[in-house]
Amino acid sequence: MITDPTIELRVNRERLWSSMMDLAEIGATPKGGVCRLALSELDGAGRDLFIEWARSEGCEVRVDKVGNIIARRAGTDPSCKPVMTGSHLDTQPTGGKFDGIYGVMAGLEVIRTLNDQNIRTVAPLELAVWTNEEGTRFSPVMMGSGVFSGVLSLQDMLDKTDSEGIFVKDALRAIGYDGEYEPGHDLKAYFEAHIEQGPVLEDKSKTIGVVTGAMGQRWYDIEIVGLESHAGSTPMETRRDALVAASRLIVKVNEIAREQRPDGRGTVGHADIFPNSRNVIPGQVDLTVDFRSSSETCLRDMDRALRDACGALELSENVKIQVNQIVQFEPRPFAPTLVNAVRDAALKAGYPYEDIVSGAAHDAVYLGYVTSSAMIFVPCKGGISHNELEDATPEHLEAGSNVLLHVMLEQAGIAR
Amino acid sequence: MITDPTIELRVNRERLWSSMMDLAEIGATPKGGVCRLALSELDGAGRDLFIEWARSEGCEVRVDKVGNIIARRAGTDPSCKPVMTGSHLDTQPTGGKFDGIYGVMAGLEVIRTLNDQNIRTVAPLELAVWTNEEGTRFSPVMMGSGVFSGVLSLQDMLDKTDSEGIFVKDALRAIGYDGEYEPGHDLKAYFEAHIEQGPVLEDKSKTIGVVTGAMGQRWYDIEIVGLESHAGSTPMETRRDALVAASRLIVKVNEIAREQRPDGRGTVGHADIFPNSRNVIPGQVDLTVDFRSSSETCLRDMDRALRDACGALELSENVKIQVNQIVQFEPRPFAPTLVNAVRDAALKAGYPYEDIVSGAAHDAVYLGYVTSSAMIFVPCKGGISHNELEDATPEHLEAGSNVLLHVMLEQAGIAR
Repeated sequence: MITDPTIELRVNRERLWSSMMDLAEIGATPKGGVCRLALSELDGAGRDLFIEWARSEGCEVRVDKVGNIIARRAGTDPSCKPVMTGSHLDTQPTGGKFDGIYGVMAGLEVIRTLNDQNIRTVAPLELAVWTNEEGTRFSPVMMGSGVFSGVLSLQDMLDKTDSEGIFVKDALRAIGYDGEYEPGHDLKAYFEAHIEQGPVLEDKSKTIGVVTGAMGQRWYDIEIVGLESHAGSTPMETRRDALVAASRLIVKVNEIAREQRPDGRGTVGHADIFPNSRNVIPGQVDLTVDFRSSSETCLRDMDRALRDACGALELSENVKIQVNQIVQFEPRPFAPTLVNAVRDAALKAGYPYEDIVSGAAHDAVYLGYVTSSAMIFVPCKGGISHNELEDATPEHLEAGSNVLLHVMLEQAGIAR
Repeated sequence: MITDPTIELRVNRERLWSSMMDLAEIGATPKGGVCRLALSELDGAGRDLFIEWARSEGCEVRVDKVGNIIARRAGTDPSCKPVMTGSHLDTQPTGGKFDGIYGVMAGLEVIRTLNDQNIRTVAPLELAVWTNEEGTRFSPVMMGSGVFSGVLSLQDMLDKTDSEGIFVKDALRAIGYDGEYEPGHDLKAYFEAHIEQGPVLEDKSKTIGVVTGAMGQRWYDIEIVGLESHAGSTPMETRRDALVAASRLIVKVNEIAREQRPDGRGTVGHADIFPNSRNVIPGQVDLTVDFRSSSETCLRDMDRALRDACGALELSENVKIQVNQIVQFEPRPFAPTLVNAVRDAALKAGYPYEDIVSGAAHDAVYLGYVTSSAMIFVPCKGGISHNELEDATPEHLEAGSNVLLHVMLEQAGIAR
């Protein structure tokens, strides 16, 4: 490999940080977070600012029919497929300044840096802002990238409504993002920079997470029916306490996940208790189970163990348990050549790095259905995300952007 | 003991049942239950009907300052302290036709039967309708009997408000039950007939529960604080899952109660989970614990075991747990002579009976502070109570009333 004169090339840390802080003012919350729900007026304002920035860097900007924004920096060979990066600008209701936004702004900083240095690439570079990644206002999550990748139907998504009955198509029109382009086109590669949203990099003092893939997920709704009765007058031995059964199941879900090395995860995040009254033995508990793992075999084992546990609890606790699986995502490894490229770029730049499997889903996972894709993680403070306290350091944000810069350059080729 | 010519005396089963069904029409719910919240217009209508019935049996009716109704059937010796029975006419929001109402109507049926047979007693008989036993609209429970017995302060109770800010004193006035009499006077004895509200009598095919006392109770509010984090990106070993800690505690509460023979009871009826979202590891769980037992030593052991379990969970689950005890009732045995009288009456009448400790509190417990008191339980279907499905048979209701009739006659003495 010929030594690349761009090896020392670095993005501008201060510019990246200050643009991110500017964007964070749109929808800023009193506690230091951001509320910019998908396709809200504030989301529209954030998109407008992004387009203004992209155009001032000479990018051509297109909006597709599901509202995805794609800013394109031309290459020298129009026949080359573009190398894309991107993420999302929408947030959780009490979200932070970094989740999604970082991936978009890192891509913009890459383009700004190349413009600064008058570096042209052979293949064009594209920077995408995906519509409604969070899925908070409109379900499902990752709507824009799902449509772009052909996993989700455009028409179905346009017909989705929020809790007030507003259609996606009308929300797009209201903020002027009902674009004319058909979603989806050929790509050479897709990269996405993102905060980790977990504690691993910080705990291990690593700067770059080399994301080898995304975990598979299985989600369940579980209904446990016992018998509501009086907390005072019902002897222990005749009770059919749905909450005791639920509690044994919650402990079991935790154990099942711990047994699946190295990365099985099991969470009960939500439970509704009926009647939820101090003096009444609960007659029913509805709860959710979320299993994740990078291994399909592990997910299958966890599924079996969950169902076995429910069967055993029906007998031991004298309750009825219904298990309803509602979501199944297969584990999705990212493209090994791109993953290696990320690892190499971190190594060359001298950043401490660690291979990591993403426990969360990201737009990059859907992009992996139509092109080679990979991700770059940077640490976030305390692993906290989806929270106004979300935080990351300018140093780490710069490091991830430098890795992004070099892997994009490598894929797109430098025009000499 | 001289053979009593009244030994074969029985109440009128059909009249008792039909009056109970008439009363159940006031506030009748579509599912066959009753909604007659304390001091509501419907409670007023139920009280009015009771007073009409009591007056037509020749009783003198007084209402005290907290709205307790006391109907008095004169005895032959005005110097004798009255023998009282009673219960309550208010219900849970989705209550049944029997809880409380049975005790009042059994008392009325005793008076009607004595009138039928022209039997006069030496001591006067009194029949009380206690205000706000359920405590659903106005807290605390057993308000009327608490004031009558001097355990609760009249003024404090009149100043209590419901969720709409309406004062007890105003609610009393609105339905015309802000009586002129000071609550409380001397009694010879107090009996209360009640449905069991538990499954023991039905399971053992017994007709009469000889209630030897009421369990002590200790209630707790417990707050468990962990760390809210992402269900996908947080490895199992770094989690501080408040719901897993809560679940282990709920299982432990159940075990603690099972270890306390014969009648320890432990219930977690209520839990609030934060943020209660499928993909977020819960950061906080607030839950209640309700311990009951007929033994103060057992209650003390359960308290200690609960606090020890919380301490151990703080370490093993890396959470913070705060235990706040909010209620403490001592176990209250009923008066042995009256308990024996109930047992004898059941035996003489040929009813299968069983000694039982009430896990629920009742007006009779407060009356036990100022006079000898005791209770008579009859089975209810499936042990179900505080529920529109609450049910009991005319045969069992008659049996309990016959026992009540004979113990009251014995205490009051028959005038010859």
